[in-house]
Amino acid sequence: MDTTIPQSAVRTRYRVPYADTDMMGVVYYGNYLTLFERARNELMRATGPSYAQMEREGLMLPVIQAHVDYRSPARYDDELEIAAWLDEARGARCTVRCAVLRDGETLATGWTVHACVDAKTRRPARLPSWLSARHFTPPEGDSRPVS
Amino acid sequence: MDTTIPQSAVRTRYRVPYADTDMMGVVYYGNYLTLFERARNELMRATGPSYAQMEREGLMLPVIQAHVDYRSPARYDDELEIAAWLDEARGARCTVRCAVLRDGETLATGWTVHACVDAKTRRPARLPSWLSARHFTPPEGDSRPVS
Amino acid sequence: MDTTIPQSAVRTRYRVPYADTDMMGVVYYGNYLTLFERARNELMRATGPSYAQMEREGLMLPVIQAHVDYRSPARYDDELEIAAWLDEARGARCTVRCAVLRDGETLATGWTVHACVDAKTRRPARLPSWLSARHFTPPEGDSRPVS
Amino acid sequence: MDTTIPQSAVRTRYRVPYADTDMMGVVYYGNYLTLFERARNELMRATGPSYAQMEREGLMLPVIQAHVDYRSPARYDDELEIAAWLDEARGARCTVRCAVLRDGETLATGWTVHACVDAKTRRPARLPSWLSARHFTPPEGDSRPVS
Repeated sequence: MDTTIPQSAVRTRYRVPYADTDMMGVVYYGNYLTLFERARNELMRATGPSYAQMEREGLMLPVIQAHVDYRSPARYDDELEIAAWLDEARGARCTVRCAVLRDGETLATGWTVHACVDAKTRRPARLPSWLSARHFTPPEGDSRPVS
Repeated sequence: MDTTIPQSAVRTRYRVPYADTDMMGVVYYGNYLTLFERARNELMRATGPSYAQMEREGLMLPVIQAHVDYRSPARYDDELEIAAWLDEARGARCTVRCAVLRDGETLATGWTVHACVDAKTRRPARLPSWLSARHFTPPEGDSRPVS
Repeated sequence: MDTTIPQSAVRTRYRVPYADTDMMGVVYYGNYLTLFERARNELMRATGPSYAQMEREGLMLPVIQAHVDYRSPARYDDELEIAAWLDEARGARCTVRCAVLRDGETLATGWTVHACVDAKTRRPARLPSWLSARHFTPPEGDSRPVS
Repeated sequence: MDTTIPQSAVRTRYRVPYADTDMMGVVYYGNYLTLFERARNELMRATGPSYAQMEREGLMLPVIQAHVDYRSPARYDDELEIAAWLDEARGARCTVRCAVLRDGETLATGWTVHACVDAKTRRPARLPSWLSARHFTPPEGDSRPVS
C-alpha cells in the first residue's frame, strides 16, 4: 500500500455528490472505481490522445483487473483529488495506479490492469507507442498541483 | 398521483442493496429510474419480446421524459415490488407508468415516455403492433402477485 | 419545456465518464438526476450556506418530485454545463429548475421539488430565509459563464 | 484466479438492467462491486442475521479492500448468478470471495476484506461468533443451485 505518488501523476479534482454516498455516510466502495476512471481519463488526455479519441481510432482498454485499498472514507461534499499514473505498459497490457486524496491525506489507493484490444474484433492489440512505458513522458509541470 | 394499479401491471421484486442508498439513509432519488427500468424490462418480457430482443430486431425505445413522485422512502434491504404498465402507445411513442411498493404501501409513482426509433438510423419508427395500446393484451393472471 | 435560463442560474461544469453511459452509447437517463444534484449543490453554495452546511445546521431537503425532459443525448467525454436556478420557494417547499447543456445546446431540462424537513424529526420545517424566493439574490456576475 | 466455488457458497440471481451497462456494451467494471455486495447480503442472510440486522445490533462491516478479476463481460439482460462464500474470518476482519457466473461460465471473480467495527464509535470490534470461520456452518443444501 505504498502511496508515493510520482511526479508523472496527473491529478483531477472531483466534488462528491450525495449520489456517491451510502447510508454509512461515506462514499460507497464501488464508486471509487468511477473515481479511478475519471483520473485515468485525465491521465490519458494529459499524456496523449484522450481515451475517447483512442476509441475513435479503433483501440479499447477494457479493465481486466481492479484493486482498491480503502484507508479512510471520503464523504459528501469533499473536494477530492485523484492522482493517476502509468505504472507499467508493455505488449497488450498496461497498469494504471490511482490514489484518492483529500487535503493531502490519502483516502484510498489501487490500480487497474487494462488489455489493449481492437475495438471491432475485441482481439488483443499492441498498446499505442505513446502508452508504452519507454515512451511515456510525464507532462511538464502540473497545472493542478496538490493543495 | 393516482396509484390505482391496473390488472395489466407486471410486478417485479427487487432487494435494495447498500449501493442504492445515500447518506440520508434512504434510496437515492435518481435510483428510482433504474427501478422503473427493471420493471419495464419485465413488463416487456411478459407481454411480448424482451427489450433485448426488440433491440436485436432493430428498434430502440429511448426515454424522452421521466417523472417521479416520491411519497415515502425505500430503505436498505427492503424487498420492493415495482409495478409497471403500459399507459398509452400510439405512432412512435408510448408511456409506461410505474409504482414502487413495499408491503403494499406505495412509496413512489411515476412514468417514462419513450420514442420508438430505428436502432441504426435513430430516426422515429412505428411502435411494434404488440406494443400499441389496441393490441395490448395483459398477461393472463400474474404469477407474482402483491404480497 | 421552456429553456430560457435566467441570469440567476448557477452553472457547473462536468465531464462525462464511461460510468455514466449505457450500451446505447449515451448517458443513462437516470444519471441526469445526479447531474441535477451536482448543479443544485453549486447553486446553494453560490447563494447561501452549502447543502452540507445546511444539513449540519439541522435542515434537509429531500426530493418529493423529479422531472426530466430529454432532447438530445449527452455522451462520453462531453464537457457538460448544468445550469440550476431557484424557481419557487415558500413555506416548506422549493422548486429548482435545471438545464443540461453542451456547447450552448440544451440537451435536457427538468426540475426537482424539495420538502424542507428537520434533520432529526424529518418533519416539515420552514425554508431558511435565504432560500425563500423573496430573499433570493442571484450572485453578482457569474464566474462560470456559458462557453 | 482459482474459481473452485465451495459447497458453502450462497448463490444469488440477478438480471442485468441497461443501467449497469456502459457504451462498450457490457457491464461497467465498477458495478461488479455492487454485484458482490448483493451476494454478500444473501450470504449473511443465509448463514446468520442479515447485514441489516447486524447493523441494528451495533456492528458494521466496512470494506477495507476490494479486488476483481474480469474474464468475460456480463451484458444487458443476462441472468447472472453471483456466488459468495466466507474465506477467512478472525479477530476483527473477514474476507468474502465472490464469483459472477452466467450459465455456469465464470465471468469474474474477486474478494472483499471487511473490518468489523462498532457502529457508534467506528472502532474495531470482534466479529460475531457466527461469522468466525470456526463457527461457520454452511447452509444445508442450497435452494438456488447453479443452472
